[in-house]
Amino acid sequence: MRIDIISVVPKLMESFFAHSILKRAKNKGLAEIHLHDLRMYATGKNRQVDDYAFGGGAGMVLQIEPIARCIRALQSERTYDEIIYLTPDGERLAQRTVNQLSLKTNLLLLCGHYKGVDQRVRDLFVTKEISIGDYVLSGGELAAAVLTDAIVRLVPGVLNDETSALTDSFQDNLLAPPVYTRPAVFEENAVPEVLLSGHEAKIEQWRLDQSLALTKLKRPDLL
Amino acid sequence: MRIDIISVVPKLMESFFAHSILKRAKNKGLAEIHLHDLRMYATGKNRQVDDYAFGGGAGMVLQIEPIARCIRALQSERTYDEIIYLTPDGERLAQRTVNQLSLKTNLLLLCGHYKGVDQRVRDLFVTKEISIGDYVLSGGELAAAVLTDAIVRLVPGVLNDETSALTDSFQDNLLAPPVYTRPAVFEENAVPEVLLSGHEAKIEQWRLDQSLALTKLKRPDLL
Repeated sequence: MRIDIISVVPKLMESFFAHSILKRAKNKGLAEIHLHDLRMYATGKNRQVDDYAFGGGAGMVLQIEPIARCIRALQSERTYDEIIYLTPDGERLAQRTVNQLSLKTNLLLLCGHYKGVDQRVRDLFVTKEISIGDYVLSGGELAAAVLTDAIVRLVPGVLNDETSALTDSFQDNLLAPPVYTRPAVFEENAVPEVLLSGHEAKIEQWRLDQSLALTKLKRPDLL
Repeated sequence: MRIDIISVVPKLMESFFAHSILKRAKNKGLAEIHLHDLRMYATGKNRQVDDYAFGGGAGMVLQIEPIARCIRALQSERTYDEIIYLTPDGERLAQRTVNQLSLKTNLLLLCGHYKGVDQRVRDLFVTKEISIGDYVLSGGELAAAVLTDAIVRLVPGVLNDETSALTDSFQDNLLAPPVYTRPAVFEENAVPEVLLSGHEAKIEQWRLDQSLALTKLKRPDLL
């Protein structure tokens, strides 16, 4: 799988891609992530990529021309399954979408910044708009990193233990059960006895009961 | 405002905090962000901070002892308004919560990693659990960066143009209207004429109409 990310400040994401599971995925040859600096596709002397909004108002808007140039240059080299714009008014990201995207071959992510991109970019180039949640960030870079991380960890072989992702919250529409590790007693707070029992069936039942109870309590909408 | 972030891989977040508006907030003395490496609070020779889950199963669990030591060390220096654990089964983050947290003085964020933290950390220390969305990440670091960015950009003086944040999506429960910038015509695709009219009242009305129509179409739940 290959993910290309277009941004006006790609260096924001560098440490993340240099250290996380994304690095491991890269080293294992399972996923390639390429950051593209939008300014390299600007033609002006100052490599300007943004301008004031038509009609006035606060905040700058990313211009269509450098974005179009960048997307077309990338498209000339491969076909993208989706060109995704990260924006708070996009479809709200859920694990189901992450699962689907993890099966794709080439994804192109476009990060908004300032007040966002010129609407014509969305009309002419973007095939999918995703929001990572109902809140506003200073740019799409963190959203792109979140989406990339969520997707890449599902690519087979990226996580050390394949079964780990299957027991995550949301994969079965249930929140995950509580987890405990050593010491068995911390300042008089003991772990639930069943977990120390060695009785596998009872432990599985306890975890399922806990998952159901937690989901009912905190997120009844998932049931 | 001060935000402390505890993580087992703080370097993941470094480039983000070094370049974004968070750097500007720091330089202006408006917000301090401190990253704390959980391993510095481990006592073993190998600085181990995680162990297998009691009861078996895939994935490691962050131990309570180093976390307790780190939180208590920080608490000995100041009082925290909230100790927030980033976890997919927490309260789903929305702009309203971001607005409220932006008014606090000291926040402590705890990043999960692997299968999460020992449940007793949540029971004994954490005052608020936040999820940035219904999907699973490889760790809480990106979630902490998302939360920090969303909060800090609301601190007065951080954004260059104060009015910018007020016209964002969600601040009035409406999605933001489309934005356009130069050129007025891109490959035969023109910007809406009203935006070039110079007629302020008409422009405001068009934007409000667009916001309402977009919200009705894409996110009727917000209305």
